[in-house]
Amino acid sequence: MSKTNRGNFFEDFEIGQVIRHATPRTVTGGDQALYTALYGSRFAVQSSDAFARALGYAHAPVDDLLTFHIVFGKTVPDISLNAVANLGYAGGRFLAPVYPGDTLSTVSEVIGKKENSNGRTGVVYVRSTGYTANGTEVLDYVRWVMVNKRDPGSPAPDPVVPDLPAAIDPDALGTAVPLLDSAKWDNDLSGSAFRFGDYAIGEKIDHVDGMTVEEAEHQMATRLYQNTAKVHFNQHTESKGRFGKRLIYGGHVISLARALSFNGLGNAFHISGINGGRHVAPLFSGDTVYAWSEVLDKSEIEGRMDVGALRLRLTATRNRSCQDFPLKDGDGKYLEDVILDFDYWVLMPK
Amino acid sequence: MSKTNRGNFFEDFEIGQVIRHATPRTVTGGDQALYTALYGSRFAVQSSDAFARALGYAHAPVDDLLTFHIVFGKTVPDISLNAVANLGYAGGRFLAPVYPGDTLSTVSEVIGKKENSNGRTGVVYVRSTGYTANGTEVLDYVRWVMVNKRDPGSPAPDPVVPDLPAAIDPDALGTAVPLLDSAKWDNDLSGSAFRFGDYAIGEKIDHVDGMTVEEAEHQMATRLYQNTAKVHFNQHTESKGRFGKRLIYGGHVISLARALSFNGLGNAFHISGINGGRHVAPLFSGDTVYAWSEVLDKSEIEGRMDVGALRLRLTATRNRSCQDFPLKDGDGKYLEDVILDFDYWVLMPK
Amino acid sequence: MSKTNRGNFFEDFEIGQVIRHATPRTVTGGDQALYTALYGSRFAVQSSDAFARALGYAHAPVDDLLTFHIVFGKTVPDISLNAVANLGYAGGRFLAPVYPGDTLSTVSEVIGKKENSNGRTGVVYVRSTGYTANGTEVLDYVRWVMVNKRDPGSPAPDPVVPDLPAAIDPDALGTAVPLLDSAKWDNDLSGSAFRFGDYAIGEKIDHVDGMTVEEAEHQMATRLYQNTAKVHFNQHTESKGRFGKRLIYGGHVISLARALSFNGLGNAFHISGINGGRHVAPLFSGDTVYAWSEVLDKSEIEGRMDVGALRLRLTATRNRSCQDFPLKDGDGKYLEDVILDFDYWVLMPK
Repeated sequence: MSKTNRGNFFEDFEIGQVIRHATPRTVTGGDQALYTALYGSRFAVQSSDAFARALGYAHAPVDDLLTFHIVFGKTVPDISLNAVANLGYAGGRFLAPVYPGDTLSTVSEVIGKKENSNGRTGVVYVRSTGYTANGTEVLDYVRWVMVNKRDPGSPAPDPVVPDLPAAIDPDALGTAVPLLDSAKWDNDLSGSAFRFGDYAIGEKIDHVDGMTVEEAEHQMATRLYQNTAKVHFNQHTESKGRFGKRLIYGGHVISLARALSFNGLGNAFHISGINGGRHVAPLFSGDTVYAWSEVLDKSEIEGRMDVGALRLRLTATRNRSCQDFPLKDGDGKYLEDVILDFDYWVLMPK
Repeated sequence: MSKTNRGNFFEDFEIGQVIRHATPRTVTGGDQALYTALYGSRFAVQSSDAFARALGYAHAPVDDLLTFHIVFGKTVPDISLNAVANLGYAGGRFLAPVYPGDTLSTVSEVIGKKENSNGRTGVVYVRSTGYTANGTEVLDYVRWVMVNKRDPGSPAPDPVVPDLPAAIDPDALGTAVPLLDSAKWDNDLSGSAFRFGDYAIGEKIDHVDGMTVEEAEHQMATRLYQNTAKVHFNQHTESKGRFGKRLIYGGHVISLARALSFNGLGNAFHISGINGGRHVAPLFSGDTVYAWSEVLDKSEIEGRMDVGALRLRLTATRNRSCQDFPLKDGDGKYLEDVILDFDYWVLMPK
Repeated sequence: MSKTNRGNFFEDFEIGQVIRHATPRTVTGGDQALYTALYGSRFAVQSSDAFARALGYAHAPVDDLLTFHIVFGKTVPDISLNAVANLGYAGGRFLAPVYPGDTLSTVSEVIGKKENSNGRTGVVYVRSTGYTANGTEVLDYVRWVMVNKRDPGSPAPDPVVPDLPAAIDPDALGTAVPLLDSAKWDNDLSGSAFRFGDYAIGEKIDHVDGMTVEEAEHQMATRLYQNTAKVHFNQHTESKGRFGKRLIYGGHVISLARALSFNGLGNAFHISGINGGRHVAPLFSGDTVYAWSEVLDKSEIEGRMDVGALRLRLTATRNRSCQDFPLKDGDGKYLEDVILDFDYWVLMPK
């Protein structure tokens, strides 16, 4: 029996199977410093203990996407080592703040499985839950990946496709945020004068700035998350592969776009839910990422007078500025330069 | 009204205007670790809790220039987003030690303003003060930048040019350093046998070593400081710009030169004042930085028997070793390879 | 007398000489985060406070090789600044766990010296000991380097070559590990079902994955360790040197290979002894590192029922996968792609 992990194939997943992933990870101020160095994030709640404390946090929580990437990274050796593609995310909820010192672990349940018509691959759906050492759930989300079959001749299982929500119900949002004293929210320090009431459904915001990505940056980020997907790290094999070069972890794009979105959404201090997300095209070292947002919806949250929820569609492009809000062509196909289509809820102070 | 920050133009600044900058920032051991990884700094006081404690510090303070860069970075979105050039620094004083856990914020006051004769740009002078969450001032300094006018046709304001000191008065130095027990200063551990008394005015020191800079390094540094100046990050636009490539944040050069200066100034443990500084020429990825120092002055500090102040001129070059102390040609023009001319005070144990 | 350190030459070393190295260094969670970002290490004991505590540690210790690199880095300015080559390591023992907050210093003793027949260089042997601020020894090891003579005409000293052990005695291993409660060792969380009893002498394991190295990565790593060897940092001089490019610190290769070895040796949670090591060939930016291991020996440890020791030979290659276990050719010469031959003890739970 081989001592090395060659990853699971389509046949290895069973509906209802629960996988306790390896490598619990204590998050520290060092991780947050690296996150800042990698993306230049500027949201005040995650940047400043003093700002966070004034609002009712114990101290500054780490960036929500740092939590996401660490929780996600643990699933890779078991779920997506033989993945052909990471197809999508849905139903993600941030459930509790994560502070430096917390230890994160991840458990996944297989909730769907469907063979593709080509007989060589299939789609696997998993719900992954991140939790701390004392059992507090901090994040759960669904993702689905296309996985190779070990044996193209193995019979197709009965297809099970989970019923995924188009969007998280707003009343389920906000559990990771203490009741804030909005009067203590300082617009000068947060960097934006625009609050929940200032955004309108349908509004589009170009985030203006662009960020060029280097190999050393995305490799350091992806290793920080202990994500082991081979395509991000091995130029020796990738040089002979489909693209001839290393592929950048899709989550790196989400974090870059989220950091760029500060310019226009400075008070969107917390990602509360992930409704859906697709990596429309790959990103490579040397490319420059731009982003724009559209307000898809806005909602009060039951029992919360302090914050409201904005549903945002965050689009990222490569090597193309977003002043004309690029997305799809007349046929509904994504434009060539679009790389990310991400639908999520943020909270904003009122 | 646009929700994105397009930055201030010359007309937007008024004498006496006070700007509370965004993004308070809690400094951590993670920031200091990254600072060490980016520059290889070796000054023992900032490297070792035990060394710092033996001298009377609570524990190791962070590098003075890490404080400088964070305090500076906050001013960029308000002061220099439309800057054509960062012209100079003066009157900088380090006022209190900064420890991991401290939260830094910055306030600036506009103290000068003068339109250039071309009618398209002007110079803005600001005094910026960095302080911690409990109100302790840790750093103040003046910088002046050339800023574009929004409208070349707008009338020129009455020129106001502040009276800046050529150098900080030595008796104003040292407030960020506790009274040291010099007998506890261990030359073996600090890495240098040379103390205050061993340096002579006019002495020149070649710091020997060179350090090549990579894009990923200066980008990570500049983002760590939450400095948002576009020219450092966007190859897509810079490829069509003046240099065809990303420009490295000038503060990165100061930190590299300061770290190199350890070889020859190992006991210059604290930057106490910044008398002046100019970024003479740009630095780009792939260039190698060298540095040399000249002792411009030395001074006792009133009431301090433990330390003395050396006034140093730190010159950095690119792709040229400094064994012949390059600076200016016969006409007083900077030599082509010189990139930094930095005049500052350090403290040294006696 | 020059204030800059030009390094010691062969003539400067004397048998019995003790050198207290500069720059004590407090290790923090920031260093550990950077270590994870640089190598992607996944051993659960070093990754998770909760996992480490359940076993009897105070909390997660830092990676053993992070300790090694910091202790080693301090010796460079005194021992190997003028080294032609780092010839080997032997007799290394990890003696106590290192936790964030510990301050590391290094002392070396010169234990051997032998001029080479060419009269221009000689070999110097030093035993270096790393210890914390309270005097606890955490690591000691021997290394030998080839150093230039200052004056080829100076007479050769009487040769002194220390008697080095071929391997550390197993009963001397394990002092850095508390008595573990093996029942609390969770294979799911550690990422491997294979324990001490599952490995056989002579077994070979291909670690499958490859990792491409970038200039920014090895430079940041080597500066993090405050290692000042010039060849790693200065492209301006190296472009005219032997290889035309910067040479990667050999310790970076050891850490990459160790991190890759997780895939196959996930429960080898602690490096307990270094029997020997050679950097067989250099590594450069852009190269991809692979690794494989052979179990050379296994041993019980006197008084320990919880863990056993595996003696491993870790071989790293560049740009060549290790599925065929490359090492030497028929003449006993290392194959061209082999870059590291490292013989060490790890501990594994029973």
